[in-house]
Amino acid sequence: MRGDSERIAVGVVGTGGMGGMHAENLHFRVPGARLVAVADLDTRRAGGVAERSGAEVFEDGFDLIRSDRVEAVVIASPDPTHAPLVLECLKNEKPVLCEKPLADSADAARKVVEAEVELGRKLVQVGFMRRYDPQHVAVKEAVASGAVGAPVLFRGWHRNADIEPGITSEWVVINATIHDIDSARWFIEEEIEEVYVRGMNTAPKLGANVWDLQLIQFTTAGGRLGSIETNVVSGYGYEVGVEIVGERGTVQVPPLSGAIVRRGFAASQRIEDGWLARFHAAYVIEMQGWVGALLRGEAPAGPDAWDGYASLVVADACIASLRSGAPQKVETLEPPTLYRRDVEVTG
Amino acid sequence: MRGDSERIAVGVVGTGGMGGMHAENLHFRVPGARLVAVADLDTRRAGGVAERSGAEVFEDGFDLIRSDRVEAVVIASPDPTHAPLVLECLKNEKPVLCEKPLADSADAARKVVEAEVELGRKLVQVGFMRRYDPQHVAVKEAVASGAVGAPVLFRGWHRNADIEPGITSEWVVINATIHDIDSARWFIEEEIEEVYVRGMNTAPKLGANVWDLQLIQFTTAGGRLGSIETNVVSGYGYEVGVEIVGERGTVQVPPLSGAIVRRGFAASQRIEDGWLARFHAAYVIEMQGWVGALLRGEAPAGPDAWDGYASLVVADACIASLRSGAPQKVETLEPPTLYRRDVEVTG
Amino acid sequence: MRGDSERIAVGVVGTGGMGGMHAENLHFRVPGARLVAVADLDTRRAGGVAERSGAEVFEDGFDLIRSDRVEAVVIASPDPTHAPLVLECLKNEKPVLCEKPLADSADAARKVVEAEVELGRKLVQVGFMRRYDPQHVAVKEAVASGAVGAPVLFRGWHRNADIEPGITSEWVVINATIHDIDSARWFIEEEIEEVYVRGMNTAPKLGANVWDLQLIQFTTAGGRLGSIETNVVSGYGYEVGVEIVGERGTVQVPPLSGAIVRRGFAASQRIEDGWLARFHAAYVIEMQGWVGALLRGEAPAGPDAWDGYASLVVADACIASLRSGAPQKVETLEPPTLYRRDVEVTG
Amino acid sequence: MRGDSERIAVGVVGTGGMGGMHAENLHFRVPGARLVAVADLDTRRAGGVAERSGAEVFEDGFDLIRSDRVEAVVIASPDPTHAPLVLECLKNEKPVLCEKPLADSADAARKVVEAEVELGRKLVQVGFMRRYDPQHVAVKEAVASGAVGAPVLFRGWHRNADIEPGITSEWVVINATIHDIDSARWFIEEEIEEVYVRGMNTAPKLGANVWDLQLIQFTTAGGRLGSIETNVVSGYGYEVGVEIVGERGTVQVPPLSGAIVRRGFAASQRIEDGWLARFHAAYVIEMQGWVGALLRGEAPAGPDAWDGYASLVVADACIASLRSGAPQKVETLEPPTLYRRDVEVTG
Repeated sequence: MRGDSERIAVGVVGTGGMGGMHAENLHFRVPGARLVAVADLDTRRAGGVAERSGAEVFEDGFDLIRSDRVEAVVIASPDPTHAPLVLECLKNEKPVLCEKPLADSADAARKVVEAEVELGRKLVQVGFMRRYDPQHVAVKEAVASGAVGAPVLFRGWHRNADIEPGITSEWVVINATIHDIDSARWFIEEEIEEVYVRGMNTAPKLGANVWDLQLIQFTTAGGRLGSIETNVVSGYGYEVGVEIVGERGTVQVPPLSGAIVRRGFAASQRIEDGWLARFHAAYVIEMQGWVGALLRGEAPAGPDAWDGYASLVVADACIASLRSGAPQKVETLEPPTLYRRDVEVTG
Repeated sequence: MRGDSERIAVGVVGTGGMGGMHAENLHFRVPGARLVAVADLDTRRAGGVAERSGAEVFEDGFDLIRSDRVEAVVIASPDPTHAPLVLECLKNEKPVLCEKPLADSADAARKVVEAEVELGRKLVQVGFMRRYDPQHVAVKEAVASGAVGAPVLFRGWHRNADIEPGITSEWVVINATIHDIDSARWFIEEEIEEVYVRGMNTAPKLGANVWDLQLIQFTTAGGRLGSIETNVVSGYGYEVGVEIVGERGTVQVPPLSGAIVRRGFAASQRIEDGWLARFHAAYVIEMQGWVGALLRGEAPAGPDAWDGYASLVVADACIASLRSGAPQKVETLEPPTLYRRDVEVTG
Repeated sequence: MRGDSERIAVGVVGTGGMGGMHAENLHFRVPGARLVAVADLDTRRAGGVAERSGAEVFEDGFDLIRSDRVEAVVIASPDPTHAPLVLECLKNEKPVLCEKPLADSADAARKVVEAEVELGRKLVQVGFMRRYDPQHVAVKEAVASGAVGAPVLFRGWHRNADIEPGITSEWVVINATIHDIDSARWFIEEEIEEVYVRGMNTAPKLGANVWDLQLIQFTTAGGRLGSIETNVVSGYGYEVGVEIVGERGTVQVPPLSGAIVRRGFAASQRIEDGWLARFHAAYVIEMQGWVGALLRGEAPAGPDAWDGYASLVVADACIASLRSGAPQKVETLEPPTLYRRDVEVTG
Repeated sequence: MRGDSERIAVGVVGTGGMGGMHAENLHFRVPGARLVAVADLDTRRAGGVAERSGAEVFEDGFDLIRSDRVEAVVIASPDPTHAPLVLECLKNEKPVLCEKPLADSADAARKVVEAEVELGRKLVQVGFMRRYDPQHVAVKEAVASGAVGAPVLFRGWHRNADIEPGITSEWVVINATIHDIDSARWFIEEEIEEVYVRGMNTAPKLGANVWDLQLIQFTTAGGRLGSIETNVVSGYGYEVGVEIVGERGTVQVPPLSGAIVRRGFAASQRIEDGWLARFHAAYVIEMQGWVGALLRGEAPAGPDAWDGYASLVVADACIASLRSGAPQKVETLEPPTLYRRDVEVTG
């Protein structure tokens, strides 16, 4: 077991908004880690991120993963590259924190699950950061306390301020709703069994056939209900919230956390403009938790490859319902032993 | 046109919780009215309600409607009696404020519409009191101001604390969700085109097949979306809320209005236990508005027979979806001229 | 005892903002009353208020009080006229609801008290409407329940949006802070013993020596503490709030009650622009309560002449402290039996 | 200038609640630091804190300060030891973050100021962690933006849940209100000129003459006003809040940040039980900022020795007013050039 005084040498693949933020957290807020390498096709951007920490700059993420200097990998490159890079990490038996989605399709995600099962131990954690957001954790703890009885209904809302043209209705599911699907599985602790998804275009600039507003109603295997609003052009700000309705009450994320400004006959609070600001604390806690587990020689404790795969299976069903206009059954999934929470898997 | 100094002689049919409250409002809070008659099979209860105002007590609601002393009628008797009593009012050409639902089926409501069309002027107002609730009105005004752009999504939640055994899943739709259906039509100003309703039993005492928790996702004729939670055994209190998501923002009912008590490491606010307390102000404003219109010799300005009928048509579709588990198209409705808001109908 | 079917003939002196609102409430929202007379030097304005109710118009308030048609009087004329008009009501043994302040000085108020004591029964109620505001009542009820233990600290804030030049620092005390002094006495249920008042000019248009922002710290006879912010040029809206700190917790008025509008990266709620809007419900409840008591032949149950006098005695001490910059003892007051709440005074 | 890859060797004097928390932050959340030494008379407790980081354990804080292994010092030992230990740090030219208060009297604090002036550069930062609390920072930023005009009134409330017997009224000022005095100076950016302090005992267990509830009204040199409630036996939880009233509006800390639990006819949010939980994030940000400045070879940017001294001078005046019952002038202070923010002081 590593002595605490040593630090994990971490490499980050992708130095855009997400990768840059993870690199900064590793350097300034996670004492257990040393940022030793970054990789990006845009090596100039990667150089800027590496500068303060003296990290080595790679153009190719695969070279970074294979580098002896790198002990653990954070993947924040474009979605389609996630699965191949994770597979490379598994091949090199290096722990990896991969931004969601685990892959850009359920099939690709299943290949990662199969590779990890074959390896026989968990090395993959998926970047569902909401599980580390103090507000979501407070809701989870209150529900777990039994204060409102067993959960019977999940209500989620996920609103981005705006988005650039070029997205598709399917992209909204795979890239945005995937968070809320994971939240729903995490809070309700049951697999989603059926989804019914309708959409609407509220932003002509995206193209009339792009449904930037999507409403998902789902039922779980245990008969519990759920409703998710994904709204990538809310037009007002970035907000994510959840309310869990239980048998005897409900638990909801707290109100906005900005200062209350009273002026001009109104009292107002600022709303964040994006997820990096809104989930700043969550990303730090997520990274400290991941590095902490590695320092202790433990398997990552966060959302795993199975969570990544299961959320994509539900996402596929959502896309099918979006296209058919009819409710869509979700393929029944049975997690391999490696991922069963009721079975102790030794490292 | 009646001079303001005179008052409308009003009779109330049904003196249970709702009828008793309407009678008290008429006597103590609506100067333009005189409570002259009450009717109830339980004449002893009716006598108690009549005592303070000296109103005449009838056992039969039809006799009250036919009485020369009664100029206008409030109907707060059990649901199945609504339509026949309203038809009697139309026959006697007396204005009537009928508690929701207008009838216990769409067919019965359509007969009321036909009778009123035949009469050629609007005498019927349906008791969707939320349209008079200061919180709902504040949301409606903010949406109407265009502050958040056109509505694109309706989110409604309707929670009772508890309910006695003996109800059915269908009753929940006709008696509770009917309010939210009317709210949705009132806010979105479009007819609902398709509904998808799933339910769950959270209170075994009601019988396992009674879905006391129902989740409705709907689409309107203009492609707008909506989600309604009806939860008649919330287990914690009575709460009704709405959020209208627009193109550029959202408008939501304000937070709870009780005093904030800080003690025992928590800050809390009281939640009402039922609709009479929660909508007390709305019922007064509703009654003052209805009597005011009658005093001015105008047709009632509130939700009319067509709103009562249209909400029941949507309710029928909800019940069909509840039973089939599939989305259900709502019969397309074309309001007769009498009810068209874009056409001036002279009295 | 008057039968309920009859109504009290009420006359209103002063038809400006306050008098006009009282007249409208009497006519439209208080069934137990008939608005029979209004008085104002501006008879044209009085005529406009009288029109809908057919009330008789007087130029002289004293003539209205003496009129046989008038059974009870509401006084909403300028402050200096309050005491003389109330004395006239006592002389004619007519119940009177007088807007605060009872008089424009403690001496003038004491003469009213003396006259009422001489008459031997309570006919005077002072218009401290906050005692009827649902938010303040909710705080009062929570404190009275003992939930937070005995009150130990009163925190009040009273903010007007703006005010026209022509006021003095003393006017701020007599006309605005007087409400908060009454609130403090009502919540703490003890006389104020010492006050320390400092002020600041935040609006040069009023004249640099006019302190439109005043901060009052007081101690009660029982050693309890209090702080009042009076801010008549808040520059943002009209807000009145109170927090009662008890031995084991605190009770505070609820948050704002406007719809929550999310747009432009902010969530905001409207703040009222003035007291007529903010306390609309309180003025209706106040008037219904006053008329209800008169209909039942009871003495008015609201804040009485002694409350009017005691608040002015504290106001005088505030003015003295404002001028001296030093804490100021408040003259110790012993209420005559007529006003003692622990003694039953028969009508 | 130190390369970023190196880390500052920090020693912590005092390993109680505060010292233990600082040690944990240094080790787990501040990558720029290495916890190399801890000191406490209770060496067993110090050993427990040192264990995970391998830090050296000292019994005597002065020995830790003099140790060559220690480059910077955090002081979290009992109040009376602060000034002597800080003077030792200055003697050894080692940067020091000293928990408030800087000393247990203004005189002792002035000696620290004099020593630092003599040294010619700023090495002392005082632990007023609220300046790093995201809620307080959000208020400060909103005020600094000019959104509500210049500050005219400071309203602060500082409530502990409970406290053990053995404190004095003076202790409440020096140990608790000192935070709010610093907040007031930080927000209003003017020295406090006069204070008026009254108190009350709400917890007999402390001794009737111990005023656990204190209310301070102050005026600043520029004529601005302020009110501070210090309430060390609130009986319900730990809460600190501030509202800055400006010329055109107000800015207030956000509402509570706990999840909202609806059950049993109430909606409630948890209130923290103490400052370590409430200001957890602030203490991390404070430490990261202090270490970051040292790594960059800059003088600490936080509240300095002059802020520590000036707050104690105001505290002395509060104690004088508490005893006399009269307003108390605060000695006029002129900061030496080293501390003047309008003068550039080179390292």
